Amino acid sequence: MTGSAPTAPFTADDYRARMERAARAAADAGLAGLLVAPGPDLVWLTGYAPTAATERLTLLVLAAGRDPVLVVPTLEAPDAEKAAGAPALTLRDWTDGKDPYAATAALLDGSGRFGISDNAWAMHLLALQRALPGTSYASLTEALPMLRAVKDAAELELLAAAGAAADAAFDEIRQVRFGGRRESDVAADLAGLLRRFGHAQVDFTIVASGPNGANPHHEVGDRVIGDGDMVVLDFGGLKDGYGSDTSRTVHVGEPTDEERRVHDLVREAQEAGFGAVRPGAACQDVDRAARAVIAGAGYGEYFIHRTGHGIGVTTHEPPYMIEGEEQPLVPGMCFSVEPGVYLPGRFGVRIEDIVTVTGGGGRRLNDTTREMVIVE
Amino acid sequence: MTGSAPTAPFTADDYRARMERAARAAADAGLAGLLVAPGPDLVWLTGYAPTAATERLTLLVLAAGRDPVLVVPTLEAPDAEKAAGAPALTLRDWTDGKDPYAATAALLDGSGRFGISDNAWAMHLLALQRALPGTSYASLTEALPMLRAVKDAAELELLAAAGAAADAAFDEIRQVRFGGRRESDVAADLAGLLRRFGHAQVDFTIVASGPNGANPHHEVGDRVIGDGDMVVLDFGGLKDGYGSDTSRTVHVGEPTDEERRVHDLVREAQEAGFGAVRPGAACQDVDRAARAVIAGAGYGEYFIHRTGHGIGVTTHEPPYMIEGEEQPLVPGMCFSVEPGVYLPGRFGVRIEDIVTVTGGGGRRLNDTTREMVIVE
Repeated sequence: MTGSAPTAPFTADDYRARMERAARAAADAGLAGLLVAPGPDLVWLTGYAPTAATERLTLLVLAAGRDPVLVVPTLEAPDAEKAAGAPALTLRDWTDGKDPYAATAALLDGSGRFGISDNAWAMHLLALQRALPGTSYASLTEALPMLRAVKDAAELELLAAAGAAADAAFDEIRQVRFGGRRESDVAADLAGLLRRFGHAQVDFTIVASGPNGANPHHEVGDRVIGDGDMVVLDFGGLKDGYGSDTSRTVHVGEPTDEERRVHDLVREAQEAGFGAVRPGAACQDVDRAARAVIAGAGYGEYFIHRTGHGIGVTTHEPPYMIEGEEQPLVPGMCFSVEPGVYLPGRFGVRIEDIVTVTGGGGRRLNDTTREMVIVE
Repeated sequence: MTGSAPTAPFTADDYRARMERAARAAADAGLAGLLVAPGPDLVWLTGYAPTAATERLTLLVLAAGRDPVLVVPTLEAPDAEKAAGAPALTLRDWTDGKDPYAATAALLDGSGRFGISDNAWAMHLLALQRALPGTSYASLTEALPMLRAVKDAAELELLAAAGAAADAAFDEIRQVRFGGRRESDVAADLAGLLRRFGHAQVDFTIVASGPNGANPHHEVGDRVIGDGDMVVLDFGGLKDGYGSDTSRTVHVGEPTDEERRVHDLVREAQEAGFGAVRPGAACQDVDRAARAVIAGAGYGEYFIHRTGHGIGVTTHEPPYMIEGEEQPLVPGMCFSVEPGVYLPGRFGVRIEDIVTVTGGGGRRLNDTTREMVIVE
């Protein structure tokens, strides 16, 4: 385990350009600067991922027209120096016992509004608010929702490669035996396949069989999969630093008419959500298109989550395809389209692809069959 | 992967008692209540650990004289219901698209000061500050540093068992071959041993050989360990939900006089730190005692970190043994005593035990030899 991020093929110049873009976007949004905590924002901007986020402050300070500064504990400075983006920033290290908030405050204007990473620790935010009583703060996603949402060509290539690896995993998993095995056994197969096809990190391998499939948040358990079970598979992780996330719902043996009807319905909803993807449409339009199909068939109350979420250096990030999200779609955005129907105590169906916005509409980064696959 | 925490043998009554204790401590500290985010605080208070902390709000609301309420996304409610502490609280779930901050605000007084988990997301804190402009916030550790610091008998037993498992791992690892193997190979051995002796989670297996040992934050790398190398081993994780963390520094073949002298010095410093542990002493006294030994020998500038940190449901938590920390030691507190000397470009030495405060002084929860062990 080193302190560096899952490898992505970007250079110090790439990170410099991202930091400049972020600082400009902050200024355009009326912000005095950005305060970036360990996590996906920091990985994306600098390539640096500390081993763990802790009570010791690590914070990237960005402001238009100033050189980026990374405040970092002295102990972690050697790791930070190894990050691909390190040549594009100045390290300012601080030693246990010193006040890192005073050191950070000295880098900031004493007034103005700053964007701060969504996942920055509350204790750090509270200390900054106290050190700089004239400042105010907005969550980075709220202030700059589009900061990481639009991917460039190199990022799209990495996301497409991650999607292709997930597709390869599905094409293999559909050939293994499901009936008589535990969900956890099939999940282990799935994790192994994702790794075999190049994933360095597996984030989730959901195998939700029979009634477990009706809980959209069920991950995996010891339930033995039986003949006649519907099984929701939802799996993804990071390959070369970028995410995959796909779902298919398979059936052990012959499905009933109702199972087939619900699966067809979700497939049509997913198609409708995908069909709504085009530049200028709002995120909520994708949700509405998918939801209308399911509601129109009388299953609206059983589609109990949003239709999708963004993906990039994480498997789960803005923008969200949800009612109320008026953010327009822009070419280069990548997100899931994943409607589902969940019949309590019985079964669930979810079908999910990663989709990217192109000039002419949507392009799927997953493309295995969306027809119901019958497994053994 | 389920949503439950690493198993600890506590009942709903245990969690109820902890929540009541926390609410009372908050009231005694002049707080209107506590807001507890996913992470160690929530595990300790409820036994619940969501699969991941996300932008979806999960928050335990505690206030003296009121029933505890866990605000949780609807999707995650089935997992939360399975937590051992769930019978001791009320779940209030919220659906995507609804405003969880308004729902939380309705549970709180519109004024007053609240303690909030150190690691709560900044975006959640900012939204609460906006929803309740009359409130103020303090980080939970700052407001109630002792909340999880003093362990009860059952917790001490679990920490002692984790320490014994780490000792068993050291007694095995000292017998493997070091010379000619990569640090990462020895680290993999260590991780396997921790698991074999009952750890469900391995947090770190630092193997820092030769000059790598002079970077106290080096974790492990591809360096091939050579004859004549000093090797710092620092390893730990969670066994039955409670932490281990120990360090020993071994040597491949015969050490030089200087290596032996520095190792002796760190051993004496560790002994002095341990000797300073007694009820009523301040945390900083432990640091001072260890540091005085090293500084007295002229190596003060090479001891570049604090002397220790607490341990419990995490391997790294308050209280901190550091200059300026005047918190008095109380029987039942558990923390590391881990002085080190780091000679840049050459080698490092660190010796670490977990120590608990008893009525009469300190008791070590690690007790393998602190003499320099010669390995092959």
